Amino acid sequence: MGKVLSYGMVGGGPDAFIGDAHRRAIALDGKAKLVAGCFSRSYPKTLETGKLLGVEVDRLYEDYEQMAKAEAAREDGINFVVIVTPNYAHFAACKAFLEAGIAVSCDKPLAVSLDEAEELERIAREKNLLFMVTYVYSGHVTAMHIREMIKAGEIGDIRMIMGEYPQGWLAFEDISGNKQGEWRTDPALSGKSNALGDIGTHIENTVYRMTGLKIKRVLAKMDIIVPNRRLDDNSVVLVEYENGASGSYWASQIAIGHDNGLRIRIYGSEGSISWFQEQPENIELAKADGTLIQVHRGHGAIKPVAAKYTRLPSGHGEGWFEAMANLYSNFIDCLIAKEEGTFDKNMIEYPTVEDGVDGVRFVEACIESTEKGNAWVEF
Amino acid sequence: MGKVLSYGMVGGGPDAFIGDAHRRAIALDGKAKLVAGCFSRSYPKTLETGKLLGVEVDRLYEDYEQMAKAEAAREDGINFVVIVTPNYAHFAACKAFLEAGIAVSCDKPLAVSLDEAEELERIAREKNLLFMVTYVYSGHVTAMHIREMIKAGEIGDIRMIMGEYPQGWLAFEDISGNKQGEWRTDPALSGKSNALGDIGTHIENTVYRMTGLKIKRVLAKMDIIVPNRRLDDNSVVLVEYENGASGSYWASQIAIGHDNGLRIRIYGSEGSISWFQEQPENIELAKADGTLIQVHRGHGAIKPVAAKYTRLPSGHGEGWFEAMANLYSNFIDCLIAKEEGTFDKNMIEYPTVEDGVDGVRFVEACIESTEKGNAWVEF
Amino acid sequence: MGKVLSYGMVGGGPDAFIGDAHRRAIALDGKAKLVAGCFSRSYPKTLETGKLLGVEVDRLYEDYEQMAKAEAAREDGINFVVIVTPNYAHFAACKAFLEAGIAVSCDKPLAVSLDEAEELERIAREKNLLFMVTYVYSGHVTAMHIREMIKAGEIGDIRMIMGEYPQGWLAFEDISGNKQGEWRTDPALSGKSNALGDIGTHIENTVYRMTGLKIKRVLAKMDIIVPNRRLDDNSVVLVEYENGASGSYWASQIAIGHDNGLRIRIYGSEGSISWFQEQPENIELAKADGTLIQVHRGHGAIKPVAAKYTRLPSGHGEGWFEAMANLYSNFIDCLIAKEEGTFDKNMIEYPTVEDGVDGVRFVEACIESTEKGNAWVEF
Amino acid sequence: MGKVLSYGMVGGGPDAFIGDAHRRAIALDGKAKLVAGCFSRSYPKTLETGKLLGVEVDRLYEDYEQMAKAEAAREDGINFVVIVTPNYAHFAACKAFLEAGIAVSCDKPLAVSLDEAEELERIAREKNLLFMVTYVYSGHVTAMHIREMIKAGEIGDIRMIMGEYPQGWLAFEDISGNKQGEWRTDPALSGKSNALGDIGTHIENTVYRMTGLKIKRVLAKMDIIVPNRRLDDNSVVLVEYENGASGSYWASQIAIGHDNGLRIRIYGSEGSISWFQEQPENIELAKADGTLIQVHRGHGAIKPVAAKYTRLPSGHGEGWFEAMANLYSNFIDCLIAKEEGTFDKNMIEYPTVEDGVDGVRFVEACIESTEKGNAWVEF
Repeated sequence: MGKVLSYGMVGGGPDAFIGDAHRRAIALDGKAKLVAGCFSRSYPKTLETGKLLGVEVDRLYEDYEQMAKAEAAREDGINFVVIVTPNYAHFAACKAFLEAGIAVSCDKPLAVSLDEAEELERIAREKNLLFMVTYVYSGHVTAMHIREMIKAGEIGDIRMIMGEYPQGWLAFEDISGNKQGEWRTDPALSGKSNALGDIGTHIENTVYRMTGLKIKRVLAKMDIIVPNRRLDDNSVVLVEYENGASGSYWASQIAIGHDNGLRIRIYGSEGSISWFQEQPENIELAKADGTLIQVHRGHGAIKPVAAKYTRLPSGHGEGWFEAMANLYSNFIDCLIAKEEGTFDKNMIEYPTVEDGVDGVRFVEACIESTEKGNAWVEF
Repeated sequence: MGKVLSYGMVGGGPDAFIGDAHRRAIALDGKAKLVAGCFSRSYPKTLETGKLLGVEVDRLYEDYEQMAKAEAAREDGINFVVIVTPNYAHFAACKAFLEAGIAVSCDKPLAVSLDEAEELERIAREKNLLFMVTYVYSGHVTAMHIREMIKAGEIGDIRMIMGEYPQGWLAFEDISGNKQGEWRTDPALSGKSNALGDIGTHIENTVYRMTGLKIKRVLAKMDIIVPNRRLDDNSVVLVEYENGASGSYWASQIAIGHDNGLRIRIYGSEGSISWFQEQPENIELAKADGTLIQVHRGHGAIKPVAAKYTRLPSGHGEGWFEAMANLYSNFIDCLIAKEEGTFDKNMIEYPTVEDGVDGVRFVEACIESTEKGNAWVEF
Repeated sequence: MGKVLSYGMVGGGPDAFIGDAHRRAIALDGKAKLVAGCFSRSYPKTLETGKLLGVEVDRLYEDYEQMAKAEAAREDGINFVVIVTPNYAHFAACKAFLEAGIAVSCDKPLAVSLDEAEELERIAREKNLLFMVTYVYSGHVTAMHIREMIKAGEIGDIRMIMGEYPQGWLAFEDISGNKQGEWRTDPALSGKSNALGDIGTHIENTVYRMTGLKIKRVLAKMDIIVPNRRLDDNSVVLVEYENGASGSYWASQIAIGHDNGLRIRIYGSEGSISWFQEQPENIELAKADGTLIQVHRGHGAIKPVAAKYTRLPSGHGEGWFEAMANLYSNFIDCLIAKEEGTFDKNMIEYPTVEDGVDGVRFVEACIESTEKGNAWVEF
Repeated sequence: MGKVLSYGMVGGGPDAFIGDAHRRAIALDGKAKLVAGCFSRSYPKTLETGKLLGVEVDRLYEDYEQMAKAEAAREDGINFVVIVTPNYAHFAACKAFLEAGIAVSCDKPLAVSLDEAEELERIAREKNLLFMVTYVYSGHVTAMHIREMIKAGEIGDIRMIMGEYPQGWLAFEDISGNKQGEWRTDPALSGKSNALGDIGTHIENTVYRMTGLKIKRVLAKMDIIVPNRRLDDNSVVLVEYENGASGSYWASQIAIGHDNGLRIRIYGSEGSISWFQEQPENIELAKADGTLIQVHRGHGAIKPVAAKYTRLPSGHGEGWFEAMANLYSNFIDCLIAKEEGTFDKNMIEYPTVEDGVDGVRFVEACIESTEKGNAWVEF
């Protein structure tokens, strides 16, 4: 294990799923320790959460601006901050820590407008700070292996990509009592999109991480299906990539029967790949001659750059926490390397602030396309 | 079994897959017997095929016009004709038999232009003749059960439909020696579309047979992906139905790794249904409360109107031939009922000439949409 | 198609599933035509069935002995007979036709005692008559491909075989109204075993057809689980083969949730194979280096000796009828070759009377083992 | 989180998979912190590992006896010890800590002889110490839900259980360089059994945890298949339970193509359950009326006593670490409750020393059965 960094968290209070998830993912590898936090807009809640998590009271803060300054001023200040607030608050929190010179890991979407996202990208570049956006699914060993296969040309030129992310949890009008559902469907907290911003961007990013393809233009049809809903809950996006390939993305929260069905299928001139995040241990690979192959995480076929993230033998299921832990593992390794002067950009295997900007750009382009009657919008 | 009808065939010569397939499907139930044919544009080939199939030589014809007239004139003339020529020839052959007063079963697509298709529909109506278009997949017991479930409101109002039909057999430029591939990619024989006309129409029809939903408008992106190909081989179509639901159809022949992957997923306000034609014995059903259920052909849950087509207990696999045989079984029952004066339109459970017209309309609208830069085209 | 043989049937009256299934399977290829029958112990029922099936009344017989003699005496007598009576009646009917010089296709199990089975084998040999026992599952193209793979050494030496055949249809005490269930659980009609004789023998034969391995000894535990049942409904059999490999077979009719779950898994020194009859289009193959491959009927990987039985492209599902039709196709080809003087024993790809004898021997050995307190019984 | 306990570890040095796995599983919930260790028989390796793990050097011990005494003597001594040595060393290490009054979590198998195992059970009882044996698979939420379903009678009386645990990693003779493979196949380090002791006991325990059924007798056939191997690598065990139900267990390390295929299928008089540890998020449930249902971890159907261990929503994959973490979570809760005087035996949901004894008894009975020519051995 060796060197252990320290980190702080903004957001992630008592009922928040995602903050808890980040903390556990980091703990799995033990490469960083939580030592500071501003877990809620309510200071009593921050105190309560901090106590439960064993954070010293003098590093529990009333707001993130205070926290950024105080931690930057400490000799033993945090090495990075984790931002897990609702979407609308990402920007200001990220900005405060960047300006204080602290590296950031922010949950996706990076921001609720492209302007904000690009400003964060700019500051991070100016300050020369590492910035991870936690698109978790690219952290799976299998997703990384797919990236390497495609990079090596194993399925030839990419021709067609089918991405989908169906969920069923918002299929019904009455979501009272579902805290997540409430803020995600509220434009004031979630921004201009719900389903596309929340899960559509996972399709966009996972495809990008796997293939490296840049989007040229999109044509989107964002539906509001459930009565009295104010933001999209079912969207289809046609995509053209810069290499001329086509794509189709479907993001839905009204697809009863699906838990968390992110599925990416990539068709090339010499083969195809299918990956389903609910069975993240497997890759389905078809060769040009029709041979259908299943590759499991842990098998000898997994390329070393992906396989190095494996903690358990094949058949001993790794899942969502391990994917997130892989991102943090690489992020922390990069932070340490930077401190030790051994850092090199090619070490980065996590999604960066650029990925975050692309995600926001994708959503804005889709909104524009929908507003224009489902016309093509260039990137 | 009881009464056995007689039928003739146009097309279906020595190398033709589809003619052989229709003959076997009819033979499975033994409700009709092949007694006449014009199996090829080459008379020697017709003679050869006819001999192999046990057809008397005086009922082997040089062309379909001669056949239509001669069979209409015989007292023991055929009860119906099966048209299994390449697409471009469907129209003239169907027309000849209709005008001779003979019922028709024609392979899909019905015709290569909407005008032709509508003319056939008109003649059939005027002549009061039964006309089946063999969209085979609606013949599966499971497909029929889905239709009945939806009709009974078991998944509530339809909100979103995902249809796809990926195949990989035309992923490569060199298709020399592949007779089917050659005519399907040749505009002179196949019409204005390849993938969308061949398999996209199966999505369109299967969805219609299952849901009864009429299409209001389409927005299509028809790609030609393989170098030097002249017709579409990968298409995505956005759909809006008259009830306001959305749909997305993907038809591809370049999707390496897929054999014949027609898959229909239907999302309603109270549940969802998933059906995959490569495993046609099963239906995946999700209830509003999240319960995921698998229903097999042969199970008690299958509704009688679908279950009556079952020949084998569950777990004793029925497949493609049985689906086709189910269509013919119903078509022949209707023909007999008509002869016996007991016919009623509600007896019809096979896809009719109206289905055929809708299929051609769908393809024409998609072509128009593509030509207009992927704009919406009303039906 | 060419030459069409004629056949007769014993059993297969109005409510009998298996007789109807044999007739349809034969019709699918049209290589033989039903022209004679004794479909029931009740002559009026035979007359009724014969009329429905289009059999001339002078070839509808009061009993099978009369039928065997009459058909043998006709110049245009049947080329073979299909025996599809309840198990206890197989022996006498087969014997009558063999002695009349008529080739036989008999449903499995061949007989209810080893003595009977061996007598049939002896007569068939003496009379030099072809004799098929319709273990249907070996007729699948995929099953034949597995046989060829193993013969070619592709998974090395066989070490372990797991066979299972769970069904749930007899899990309950009350089976009144279930005609099949009633005779199968009645020792007078079914013989000394129910589940093991009915479905356990399918495991035994399918394994044998795939691997060619002869059984050396068995240790069986035959359970009667459902209250008031008189014959086994859940059995496990440990097997040792002559090559030293081990096996374990499980046959159950009380396994709620299973339709017809015959599954064979074969582990060799260089790979393994898994085959599931409810998805008979697929083979799962694992190579020594861990590569997991799926092979579909219709794929190029299927060896010609198996692929020649294919009627439809891959992804166009073939099922139970096609497996049975494949057996009949080969049986009829052999009969024709025999008539034409071109027959050679190596042409036989169907299960023969020897397979039938082995099946009865297997059941008798298992019964003996159970009676001896689950001791090993040598073959 | 609240109170955090401290723990020590015996075994789990640099190359040891299982020690690392236990540490990560505990870290995932953060309920206990590693503060002491004797990670290797080599003290330098212990020092090195301890440093990496952040353990103070004064709590790194040369041997476990020293460690047990020293930790028992400290006021801030460890609350429990984790024993993750090779099998043969479990007994002495466990005994040392028990006698020092320290609670134990020991990897399975508990010991290499029944005498040893029973002695540990006796000491733990006398000392009134909590003792967990980490049969990890019972820790899955789905496994716990199955236990509750069966307890509630939802599938009626258990009639038949099929358990299997195929792996392929020891299918080849040459295992040089595979450290695990080497000690597991060495009788001096592994005891009298390899496959049955290592993975067969997982079948035995998982079935017991799910059903509560006690074994009455076993009949085992333990094969040594790979040339020059000294311990069993492929075993089948017939089981009779005290309630009269039958079972069949298959444990194999030569089953090429399987990673870690523990699968349990339980057939009752009113339904059946199927569970596969490589897809531990799902349960397949069949109802008496034939309805086939899939239940996912995180679904509303999961009973609260199991659902309380959930950390992520359904579709966000939990796996092996979470199963292990669930055991530790409950074990630590029990330790805290004991300290606080609120402990009650019904709180225990982890496998205890009694489970460990049963596991060793199972292996010994199977060895005896095999030695007696595959005779029944009573428990």
